[in-house]
Amino acid sequence: MAMRRALTSAVKSVTVNSALSSSSFTRNVHGSSGSSKKIVGVFYKANEYASMNPNFVGCVEGSLGIRDWLESQGHEYIVTDDKDGPNSELENHISDLNVLITTPFHPAYVTAERIKNAKNLELLLTAGIGSDHIDLEAAAAAGLTVAEVTGSNVVSVAEDELMRILILVRNFLPGYHQAIQGEWNVAGIAYRACDLEGKTIGTVGAGRIGKLLLQRLKPFNCNLLYHDRIRMDPEMESQTGAKYEEDLVKMLGKCDVVVMNTPLTEKTKGMINKEMISKMKKGVLIVNNARGALMDTQAIVDACSSGHVAGYSGDVWYPQPAPKDHPWRYMPNHAMTPHISGTTIDAQLRYAAGVKDMLDNYFKGEDFPPQNYIVKEGELASQYR
Amino acid sequence: MAMRRALTSAVKSVTVNSALSSSSFTRNVHGSSGSSKKIVGVFYKANEYASMNPNFVGCVEGSLGIRDWLESQGHEYIVTDDKDGPNSELENHISDLNVLITTPFHPAYVTAERIKNAKNLELLLTAGIGSDHIDLEAAAAAGLTVAEVTGSNVVSVAEDELMRILILVRNFLPGYHQAIQGEWNVAGIAYRACDLEGKTIGTVGAGRIGKLLLQRLKPFNCNLLYHDRIRMDPEMESQTGAKYEEDLVKMLGKCDVVVMNTPLTEKTKGMINKEMISKMKKGVLIVNNARGALMDTQAIVDACSSGHVAGYSGDVWYPQPAPKDHPWRYMPNHAMTPHISGTTIDAQLRYAAGVKDMLDNYFKGEDFPPQNYIVKEGELASQYR
Repeated sequence: MAMRRALTSAVKSVTVNSALSSSSFTRNVHGSSGSSKKIVGVFYKANEYASMNPNFVGCVEGSLGIRDWLESQGHEYIVTDDKDGPNSELENHISDLNVLITTPFHPAYVTAERIKNAKNLELLLTAGIGSDHIDLEAAAAAGLTVAEVTGSNVVSVAEDELMRILILVRNFLPGYHQAIQGEWNVAGIAYRACDLEGKTIGTVGAGRIGKLLLQRLKPFNCNLLYHDRIRMDPEMESQTGAKYEEDLVKMLGKCDVVVMNTPLTEKTKGMINKEMISKMKKGVLIVNNARGALMDTQAIVDACSSGHVAGYSGDVWYPQPAPKDHPWRYMPNHAMTPHISGTTIDAQLRYAAGVKDMLDNYFKGEDFPPQNYIVKEGELASQYR
Repeated sequence: MAMRRALTSAVKSVTVNSALSSSSFTRNVHGSSGSSKKIVGVFYKANEYASMNPNFVGCVEGSLGIRDWLESQGHEYIVTDDKDGPNSELENHISDLNVLITTPFHPAYVTAERIKNAKNLELLLTAGIGSDHIDLEAAAAAGLTVAEVTGSNVVSVAEDELMRILILVRNFLPGYHQAIQGEWNVAGIAYRACDLEGKTIGTVGAGRIGKLLLQRLKPFNCNLLYHDRIRMDPEMESQTGAKYEEDLVKMLGKCDVVVMNTPLTEKTKGMINKEMISKMKKGVLIVNNARGALMDTQAIVDACSSGHVAGYSGDVWYPQPAPKDHPWRYMPNHAMTPHISGTTIDAQLRYAAGVKDMLDNYFKGEDFPPQNYIVKEGELASQYR
C-alpha cells in the first residue's frame, strides 16, 4: 500500500492545477475559503519500513495521513523526499506551490533564493519543531507565514535527552560493544561509569523542552542548573529545584553534564567553541538534541579526542543528513544517532494532527494557535530574534 | 601503584598466618576482639584500567581500598580474581580463610562443597547486593553469617533500568549503529521508536530498587504497575502512582515494558519461560537487571527472534562471566552489557565503605545493621525464602 501511495504521488506531481495562480497576490493572507491549493510536503522516505507500522505517518509514504482529506477538498498534494539542488522535485514545484510543509528530520533548506522564486507561496509549515532550515528573515520580508506544531515533540525530545544523559554518565556503550563482540571486561566499563545521582546538570536554555527535562531529572537527586535570557516562573523553579544561572560561562564551569536546549539563531550559531569548552570541567559530558550548528564541529572532535569532553551525544548534525565522513561519526566516546528524537511514532501522530489543524484553519481563513507562529505579518517569534 | 599492590597481594597469598586456627570453633559467632583473621576478597581484575581512576576501588587492584587498614590491624588480606576450579587461587585458601568477600559482578560461586571445606569460615560478605552465588541453605546449615551492603547500589541499578527502558522504547541502538557505520536512515529507526509517555510499565517485584525505579518513572506520565507478595505502604503507592497487581500473569498481559526486580530463588528461577512470555503482549519490551537465571535463556532468544519480545535489555546473565557463545549476545533487538549497573564508581565507594564497616563490627564482636543480614543464626532473610 505504501508503494502504491508513493507511485500515486509521483504521478500527481506532474499534474498542474490551473486554479493556483489566483492566489498569487495573497502572500501573508490566509487562503480564501474554497480556492484549491497546491501543497508540497518534504519528508524522509521509509521504503521497506513504510508498511511496518500503520501509525508511521511522518514519512513520504505516510504523507502525514492527510492525503485523502486534502484531495477530497480539491487540493493538490505532492510529497517527496527529493529536496536538494536545481533538479530536485521540490525545485520543480517551487514556482507554483502555495503551501510548503517541511520537517527538521529531513530538512528542505528554504533559502532566500527559493522564497524569491516561490511567487505563489503563502504558508510554510514545519511538521515538528525547529524552523531554522528556513531563512526566516527572508520569509518575513516576503510576507510569508511560518508556523510549527509547537509542543508536538517536546516530550519526545526531553525523554531522549534524559536517555542520552544516562547513556553517557553510566558509560553504556562500551558495555554493549563487549556484549556483541563476545567479550566480558567489567573493569573496562566500570572505571568511568557513574551514577547520575549527585551530579551537576545544566541546561543551556529552559524553554518547554528544558523544563520537561528538569521535571524528569528531579527524582534523580541531582544539582540542577539552567541558563536562559529570563528566569522561569518561581513555581516551576521550586517544582524542579533548578537554580537560575545568569552567567552562562559560570554555569558551564560547574556542570558535570551540559544539555543544549536553545534554538539555532545567528547569535547561537557555533556558540560551543574551543574557548567555551575550555571553561568547562575536564571530563564534562555534553548532550545536544537542539541543533548541530550550535557547536563548532571540529572543537567537539578535538575535545572528545583529548578527553576534555568525556562524552558527546545528540541526534542533530550540520548539515543533515550527515555525510558519511562527518567527523562526529568517528570521534571517541560519542553516542550519536541520526535526527530521530522528535519523530517517534507518538510525535508523528501529534505533529501530523497539528499540521492538519493548521491547514484547516488556513483553508477557512482562521488564525492558528498563537504559540505556533514563527513568522507572522513580517515579525519573527521571540525565540528566533 | 596498582601493579605493586597486585604483586604484594600475590606474595602475601603464600604466607600462612598461624594465628588463624584459634577461631575455627567460632563459626556463627562474630570474631573475638584482637585475633588476626585471614580475609579473602574475590573481585574482577582491572589491569590497564586500574590506574585510570583513583576511586576505582571495586577491582582486584583497588581491593576496596581497605588493605592498609586491614594490615595495620594485623589481618591478612588476599585478593584475587581467580575463582573457578580446583586449582584456582580461591580454592587454595578455602581451607583456612575466616572471611570471604565476594561480589555479584564477578561471582565466586560458594557451593555447599566449598562451605564444607572451609573449616575456618565464619563470615561471607557480598560487596554489593545479591548473594545468590552463595548456597544460602548450606551457609545457614553451617552456621555462617552472610551479609550484603544493603542499599549500596539500589540507586545505581534503578537508574540503569530506566536507561534501558528508554533505550528500548526509543529504539536507540539502530540509530547508533547507523551513526558509526556512515548511514542515515531515519525511517529505519522511527518506524518502531516510541515515547515512554503513556505506556504501561510493570515491575515484577517492588523492593528498594523497584520503588526507586517507580519514583524516577513518575514524571514520565506512564501507567505504572507492580506485582509483589505484599502491597507497598499506601504513602509510597500514592507517591509513585503505581497500582498493585496481585496476579502476576494478569499484570504481564497489560505491560508494554516488563522490568524484573525480584531476587533469584528456587521459586523464581526460570520464571519467565515460554508460557509466561505467551501471556505478554506481542511487542513487549523486557528489562532485567535482577538475575539472568530468572529467565529461560532459550525462551528469550526465541521470543526476540519471533518478535513477540520486541526488545530485551539487562546486565545479568547465567552464568557470569557470560561465555563467548551465550545466545543473548547475538539475538535480535537486545541491549545487553556485562554485569555493570551496580558497580559504578559511586556504588563501589558505597559498598567498599559498607564492607569496611561490617568488618569493623566483626572484629569488635558487634552486630551489623540489621538490613544487611542475608543469613544470620541459621535463618535466611525473608527475600531469599
